Amino acid sequence: MRMYDIIARKRDGHELSDEEIAFFVGGYVAGDVPDYQAAALCMAIFLRGMTARETGCLTAAMARSGETVDLSSLPGVTVDKHSTGGVGDKTTLVVAPLVASCGVTVAKMSGRGLGHTGGTLDKLEAIPGLSVRQGPERFLQIARECGCAVVGQTDDLVPADRKLYALRDVTATVNSIPLIASSVMSKKLAAGPQCILLDVKCGSGAFMKDEGSALELAQAMVAIGEQAGRHTVALVTDMSRPLGNAIGNALEVMEACEALRGKAPEDLESTCVELAATLLSMAGKGSLAACRALARRQIANGEAFAKLGEMVRLQGGDPACLSDFSRFAQPAASREVRASRAGWICHMDTERVGVASMELGAGRARIDDAIDHAAGIVLAHKTGDHVRRGELLATLHASSDARLDAGEATLREAVSLCDERPPDTPHLLARVSAEGVEWLGWAARPSVRA
Amino acid sequence: MRMYDIIARKRDGHELSDEEIAFFVGGYVAGDVPDYQAAALCMAIFLRGMTARETGCLTAAMARSGETVDLSSLPGVTVDKHSTGGVGDKTTLVVAPLVASCGVTVAKMSGRGLGHTGGTLDKLEAIPGLSVRQGPERFLQIARECGCAVVGQTDDLVPADRKLYALRDVTATVNSIPLIASSVMSKKLAAGPQCILLDVKCGSGAFMKDEGSALELAQAMVAIGEQAGRHTVALVTDMSRPLGNAIGNALEVMEACEALRGKAPEDLESTCVELAATLLSMAGKGSLAACRALARRQIANGEAFAKLGEMVRLQGGDPACLSDFSRFAQPAASREVRASRAGWICHMDTERVGVASMELGAGRARIDDAIDHAAGIVLAHKTGDHVRRGELLATLHASSDARLDAGEATLREAVSLCDERPPDTPHLLARVSAEGVEWLGWAARPSVRA
Repeated sequence: MRMYDIIARKRDGHELSDEEIAFFVGGYVAGDVPDYQAAALCMAIFLRGMTARETGCLTAAMARSGETVDLSSLPGVTVDKHSTGGVGDKTTLVVAPLVASCGVTVAKMSGRGLGHTGGTLDKLEAIPGLSVRQGPERFLQIARECGCAVVGQTDDLVPADRKLYALRDVTATVNSIPLIASSVMSKKLAAGPQCILLDVKCGSGAFMKDEGSALELAQAMVAIGEQAGRHTVALVTDMSRPLGNAIGNALEVMEACEALRGKAPEDLESTCVELAATLLSMAGKGSLAACRALARRQIANGEAFAKLGEMVRLQGGDPACLSDFSRFAQPAASREVRASRAGWICHMDTERVGVASMELGAGRARIDDAIDHAAGIVLAHKTGDHVRRGELLATLHASSDARLDAGEATLREAVSLCDERPPDTPHLLARVSAEGVEWLGWAARPSVRA
Repeated sequence: MRMYDIIARKRDGHELSDEEIAFFVGGYVAGDVPDYQAAALCMAIFLRGMTARETGCLTAAMARSGETVDLSSLPGVTVDKHSTGGVGDKTTLVVAPLVASCGVTVAKMSGRGLGHTGGTLDKLEAIPGLSVRQGPERFLQIARECGCAVVGQTDDLVPADRKLYALRDVTATVNSIPLIASSVMSKKLAAGPQCILLDVKCGSGAFMKDEGSALELAQAMVAIGEQAGRHTVALVTDMSRPLGNAIGNALEVMEACEALRGKAPEDLESTCVELAATLLSMAGKGSLAACRALARRQIANGEAFAKLGEMVRLQGGDPACLSDFSRFAQPAASREVRASRAGWICHMDTERVGVASMELGAGRARIDDAIDHAAGIVLAHKTGDHVRRGELLATLHASSDARLDAGEATLREAVSLCDERPPDTPHLLARVSAEGVEWLGWAARPSVRA
C-alpha cells in the first residue's frame, strides 16, 4: 500500500477502505507519512468529503493512535458533554456538577481557549488554587469520590489528532465536517465515557455559522459515536449571541455559580437545563420531562451548587470563592461602554465579541499566550433588547487602559443598533440522535438537510 | 500576506492575484513556505483549477525563480521543440538537425526518461563519446557553429519547477493541466528561444490519454507562451501506438538516422515533417506547404543527416556510428516475440509497451536507475496490422534472459489481437495556435472543447 495511491483515490472522489485509512493514520503518527502527503490528503478530503463509513473509520483509527482512558472502575453511568466552542459558554461548569449531583458520573477531559472561543480549563484555573493537571489515578479518584472531575487532556491521548490538527491549522483544512467530526469524536472515544452529549454551537460566534452545517456536523458526530457503540446525542444551540452575560474566565465562573443557584440569565438557564436533562435521560434517569424537573430541583435545593464546591475542593481549589466573588483575582482597570444612540440591538457579531474579550486579556491569539483571569466583558444587553442613548451596554475589565481601548473598539464594531425590533430567535435549535432530528426552537425546516 | 490565506482562497475556488502567486513561488523557493503548505495548495489547484491569467502568472514567476538563458547572441531565429513525452518519440533527433540545416537555430535543453517514457538526453548518450553536459559558453558556441545543440538542463534553471515537481510527484498532484503547463512552459521561457513548438502527445502511451485533455493542455501552453511574448504553437499528435518501430536508446538513434535518410516508417516521417515544417514556418521560412517541401528536400539531399553528424561531433560523439550501427553498444541477449494467434492488432496499451522497454533495461523506474543503451524493442507490427499465427511481432534486446522474460510478458499483455480490423486513426490530430484550433486528422469535433 502506498500513500500516493491513497491521496490519488481521495483526490478522484473515491471512498477509502478501512485499511487505507488505518495505513494513513498509523503511518502519520509513526512519522512514516510526511506532512506534505498528509496535507495533500487533508485538502483532498476537504474538497471531496468523506462518507459516514470513512469518517467513522478515521475516527476509530485516530482514537486508538495513543493511550485510552478506562472509566469502567467508576460507579454508575459515565457521561461526557462536549461543546464545539463559543463565546460565554460556561455550560460545563454548570452541567457537570448538576448531573453528578443526580448520581451520574462526569469524568471529563477538557480543552483550552484559542482565538475568540474560551476553554473550560482556563475558566477552572481562574478559581484560586484549582489544578486541572491531575494524574490518571487521582483523576479517577476525584470522579469516584464526588461524581465529577474536569482535567486537562494528557499528552498521549490521541496523538494523531494533535499532529493532524496542527497541520490542518496551517494548511487551511480545518473547516471540513469529516475532519472536525473525527477530531472531536476521536478524543471523546479515547476518553472512555458510555454516553456522549455534543453541544453544537450555531451562529455568528460559532465555527458553524449556519444551521445547515451545524446540523450536518451534529449528524456526523452522532453517527460516529453510535457506530463506536457509545450512546451519542447532539443538541444544536444558538451562538448568534454570547451565552449568558459574562465573557472571561473568572467572570464566567461567577455566572456559572449564579446559574447553579437559580439566578442565571434565561438563555443560559434553559440551555444548561436542556443539556443536563438530555444527559440524565441518556443515563437512564427517566424521560426528558422528568429529567428537566430533576435538574431544576437539584438547582433549587442547592445540591448542584454544593457538588461544584466538592469538585473544586478535590481539585485543590478554594470553594469559598464560589460564594464570595471578592476572592477571585480582581481587574486592574474597568470601563463602562454606553450606547451611542437609541435603538434595538438587532445583531451581534459574536465572534468579534469573543475577539474583544481576547483583546482585553481573557483569551489567546496564540497557543502560548498568557491569560488574564480577571479580564473580560459583562454584557448589560444582547440582541433583541432596546437601549436608550447613553444606556449601559457592557462593562469591560482588563489589566490596562490600552487593552480597554482595544476591547471597546472591537465590541462597538460587533454590536449593531437599528430602528426596528429584530425577530425573536430560539436558544435551543434541534436535538439529533440515532432516531433522527427533533426540531426544538425551529419549526420543521424543509430547507435543512435532515 | 499569509500563505494560509492563499491556500484558503484557492480552496474556495477564487482566482489568485499576481502578488499572491509570486509570494507563493518566491517563498517556496526561498524555503519560507514549507512543503506541507505547498502540497495543500497544489491539491487545491488540482481540484479547483486555475484561470489562464493565473497559469500565465505562475509560469512567469517560476521562470524567473533562477537563472535564465540568453540566446540573443545566436544567429537567426531561435526555436525550441518540446514533447510532452511518449514511447518511441525520437522526433527531436530528427527535427533539430532538419530545421538547423535550413538556417534556423535550435539551442535546446532537454530531459531524461522516467517511467514508461524515454528522454532525449538518454538517447543522445547512446552515441559513443557524446556528452550532454556542456558549459553555458560551449553550449552557445556549438549552436552558433552548427545551428543546433541539445544539452542537459543546468541546476540553476527554474529551481521552482524542480522543487514543485518533486513535491507533486509524491502528493498525487502531477496530472493537473495548469500545473503541467506551467512546469513545461517555465522551463521553455527560461531557456530563451523566440519560437516554441509543443508536441502534445495523446493516447494510451501519453500522459494525456484523451483528446479533450490533450487539446486543453495544448491551449493552456500556447496561451502562456503568447502571453510571455514568445511565438508558440502546439501540435497534438497520436500516441495510441509507439511512434516509429524502435523503442530504446541506441535503437531510436538508429531509427532517427534512417528517418533523416528518408527511410522512416510513415508515422514517424509524417510527424517529423509536420513538426519541422511548423517550426520553419514559425521562424519565417514561408507557408506551411512550402516548409513541408523544404523539409522533405533537406532529407532527400542529405543535408539534414549531415547536420546531425556535425552536432554529434561538436558534442564529442562519434559521427561514424550514425552510418555504421555496429559501432553502438550491442545487446547481450535478444529474442523474437511471435503472434500466439492470427488476427488484427486492434489496440496497443502503449504505456505498457513503454514499461516493457523499461523492464528490458532501456528506461528508469527511479530517477537514479542506470540505463542499458542497447536494450529495447523493435516492433514488426503495430495497431491496424494483420498478423498470421507465429508471425514476428517484435524483437527484444536486453542484458539477460530474465529481463527478456519480464519484457516479453509485459509486451504480450500490451498488444491486443482481435478478429475485426480496427478503424484507421490519424497521426496528426490538431494544430493549436493563437489563432485557434486547426483540425488535422480529425474531422471538426464539436464534442471537444476548442
